[in-house]
Amino acid sequence: MNDHSPLTIGIDFGGTSVKIAVVQQSQIIDHSPPIATQDFAGHGELIAEMVRAIQDLRVRHPEVAAIGVGMPGFVNFEEGLVYQLTNVRDWTGIPLKKLLQAQTGLPVAVDNDANCMAVAEWKCGVGRGFEHVVFMTIGTGVGGAIIANGEMIRGAFHGAGEIGQTSIDYQGRRGHYGNFGALEDYIGNREISAKAHAAYTAAGVPISHQDCSPAALADAAHRGDSIALAQWEDIGRMLATAAMNCCWLLNPQAIVIGGGVARAGDLLLDPLKEHLFSQLSGPFKDHLQILPATFGHEAGTIGAAALARDLL
Amino acid sequence: MNDHSPLTIGIDFGGTSVKIAVVQQSQIIDHSPPIATQDFAGHGELIAEMVRAIQDLRVRHPEVAAIGVGMPGFVNFEEGLVYQLTNVRDWTGIPLKKLLQAQTGLPVAVDNDANCMAVAEWKCGVGRGFEHVVFMTIGTGVGGAIIANGEMIRGAFHGAGEIGQTSIDYQGRRGHYGNFGALEDYIGNREISAKAHAAYTAAGVPISHQDCSPAALADAAHRGDSIALAQWEDIGRMLATAAMNCCWLLNPQAIVIGGGVARAGDLLLDPLKEHLFSQLSGPFKDHLQILPATFGHEAGTIGAAALARDLL
Repeated sequence: MNDHSPLTIGIDFGGTSVKIAVVQQSQIIDHSPPIATQDFAGHGELIAEMVRAIQDLRVRHPEVAAIGVGMPGFVNFEEGLVYQLTNVRDWTGIPLKKLLQAQTGLPVAVDNDANCMAVAEWKCGVGRGFEHVVFMTIGTGVGGAIIANGEMIRGAFHGAGEIGQTSIDYQGRRGHYGNFGALEDYIGNREISAKAHAAYTAAGVPISHQDCSPAALADAAHRGDSIALAQWEDIGRMLATAAMNCCWLLNPQAIVIGGGVARAGDLLLDPLKEHLFSQLSGPFKDHLQILPATFGHEAGTIGAAALARDLL
Repeated sequence: MNDHSPLTIGIDFGGTSVKIAVVQQSQIIDHSPPIATQDFAGHGELIAEMVRAIQDLRVRHPEVAAIGVGMPGFVNFEEGLVYQLTNVRDWTGIPLKKLLQAQTGLPVAVDNDANCMAVAEWKCGVGRGFEHVVFMTIGTGVGGAIIANGEMIRGAFHGAGEIGQTSIDYQGRRGHYGNFGALEDYIGNREISAKAHAAYTAAGVPISHQDCSPAALADAAHRGDSIALAQWEDIGRMLATAAMNCCWLLNPQAIVIGGGVARAGDLLLDPLKEHLFSQLSGPFKDHLQILPATFGHEAGTIGAAALARDLL
């Protein structure tokens, strides 16, 4: 680590809490107490609270040079405009970059959270040095981001990378946006639990929904539970289809997998690799790496801070 | 058209014939007699014949400044190396760019045919001015190419854009590369005909396979034949799934559709648009254009010539 590398603030704006940290390279060196997102009636009050936390951190770290923010929703990166947040009220059409710049005097970058997680891996983590990478984050939602030709692909209207909405079955169940067979509706947290619960129930095994969480299913699979193992095999196979589509379309060097569900590790990655590599031809698979993400909960903060460094 | 724009030679190397033309902007202004690809025992003889045709054209057009070639197979664009052609013998690992440059003294670009068709549309056709476009060509095979951030995305190993190999059904039929549910296995020429033949047969309508070709099915649909109309509806729906996946991943401004099957026009485009737009959210569909390709049979030649212009 270069001690002279700039300090930036990374903000991971979640539906539950806003986490604000001072970051050097990939290290969080200080942070504020989390701010409860839902405690604020409007965006103005919440932004004011964020600015107070930022200024407190700057007192301790006056060399902080820029701010990056990852938002759980649809963002215009160039303008730093938050179009809409799904789970937070009064956050429609908010020029967050402009507001934060005016109130802090620092340069500000705003992007969506999946892009921030990808930037963390790409600039500081397991994706370093790649020109062509697909990032996937699998949790309650399934998100993603694409690096091609050494650049983040944001698309025409800042929407690119929505791997969770791509279809794995054109006749599948209909999802939130009318799309049939969306990956997220098969391997998101809730769907994994519901499907496992149904499998245990069908096998005559009484079980709570809680014991069907991805974490519980990973524990059960590690104990050799055959129903749990079959779930991971299925999840890996469905994930492989979406990953394969990215490979045929983008021919990446690596696919980086993060998010809560990815904590299952090889339980997820082994069937993913098996089903993925068996469905690709040579140039698509021979050098392809499937890599677990470096960063966990801190990915959003570290990535937002890395975006901020790019402003300097 | 600018009369001072450079002349280049575009070569459309097909499995049946090699077409060589002198191109200015998007106009073919002269061409050689087609060379029968299969008449040559090895790549050396065929390249020698191509060079003879090139030199004949250069006698008539001495200002020709570069050569572009579109190949029906896997190509390393940077090196101009043809890795392999599926349907032409003795074309494995051929440094075509180097060989043609040595024998003509002109700069040479070599790319795969789908990329050339995309370049034709992007530089000279309906895709002009876009920074984010997905090209699809639907014929015997289903190919594609991707422009993102104003650049062709070739991927890590020159494979990107293989839309025909992306899956629309993770439990679908198994294709050539082991991939389940590959689009090409649903809407390629042969599959369209086979499926239509089965539908007519099931309905007790005797019909030849020839009368189930995409062109014949388009004629029948225009006459109001309900079985043919149902086929186009199905084709549009399956195509929409692959197109939708490209939209969620890449958020393009436009999708350009070419190739023989696309000659069905609105019979294909109407159900495609209906199923595509009903499966996308606002930023992915509000400004999205679905455009029939400008160029037909000449797309490969015009695109190869445009690639050559980029060398000047």
